[in-house]
Amino acid sequence: MREIKPVGLIHSPYGDKEDAPIQGAFRPNGVGWVEVFPEFEEGLQDIEGFSHIILLYLFDRAVSVRLVRPTLLDDTPHGIFASRHPGRPNGIGLTIVRLLAREKSILRVSGIDALDLTPVVDIKPYVPRFDCFPHAVEGWFQGKNERPKPEDRE
Amino acid sequence: MREIKPVGLIHSPYGDKEDAPIQGAFRPNGVGWVEVFPEFEEGLQDIEGFSHIILLYLFDRAVSVRLVRPTLLDDTPHGIFASRHPGRPNGIGLTIVRLLAREKSILRVSGIDALDLTPVVDIKPYVPRFDCFPHAVEGWFQGKNERPKPEDRE
Repeated sequence: MREIKPVGLIHSPYGDKEDAPIQGAFRPNGVGWVEVFPEFEEGLQDIEGFSHIILLYLFDRAVSVRLVRPTLLDDTPHGIFASRHPGRPNGIGLTIVRLLAREKSILRVSGIDALDLTPVVDIKPYVPRFDCFPHAVEGWFQGKNERPKPEDRE
Repeated sequence: MREIKPVGLIHSPYGDKEDAPIQGAFRPNGVGWVEVFPEFEEGLQDIEGFSHIILLYLFDRAVSVRLVRPTLLDDTPHGIFASRHPGRPNGIGLTIVRLLAREKSILRVSGIDALDLTPVVDIKPYVPRFDCFPHAVEGWFQGKNERPKPEDRE
């Protein structure tokens, strides 16, 4: 058991679930910013050298946790650990965004998918040698693309 | 504030910090397995279709949290959010591993860097369209490679 608490907030153009893309990569030009709380600003030292950063955040809007469910990208149910769906144990989301600029404790980013005012719990530098596997096999995501979120589906 | 609790455990060949690679990518053939607790097994449905998965885990061995510090890869201090160092706010680690096989609630993986018995808090499918940015600029990591962990450094 661990208590985690936000180190900042995501500011995005997406006020509710219907506005946000299913994944940031589907709307790479969606611009937002990460407000890092002043007490953590020092931890950003040298982040401006990276073109991409990994955001870990909390899915903080109401959504039920289910281990198998249809997802936003597919009507066929999949296990939650084979999905990026918000309704997951521990409710932690991950998106890789482009870092456009840093101004003190503000990080301007693009390719954001999180809702406005989503709490950020960690920021990590994206290092392609560690994080990029271009030939990875994408399972049931193969051929699935952005679509309108199905109605009445969380 | 959110309470998070493990959904499984990482079993790795690395019993202590001196044994483990600084990043999984530095020892791609290091094999281990993820034991998902039985109550979450259903959530693994369809995960076997993916060649790579993202593990989020807790840095659960004693390490002090500091916002700026020398890292395992570099003697020059960097901000913790520009580093993958364990001593970070909320203490969540991330590694992308190759999924070799699934046997019920056991995931055999390679490229692991976490210590044996590290608690896993989430598993996500790796989708190159969302997660792979081959031309990302790697900041101060440029030219830094695996090395013996500096003595007396956390």
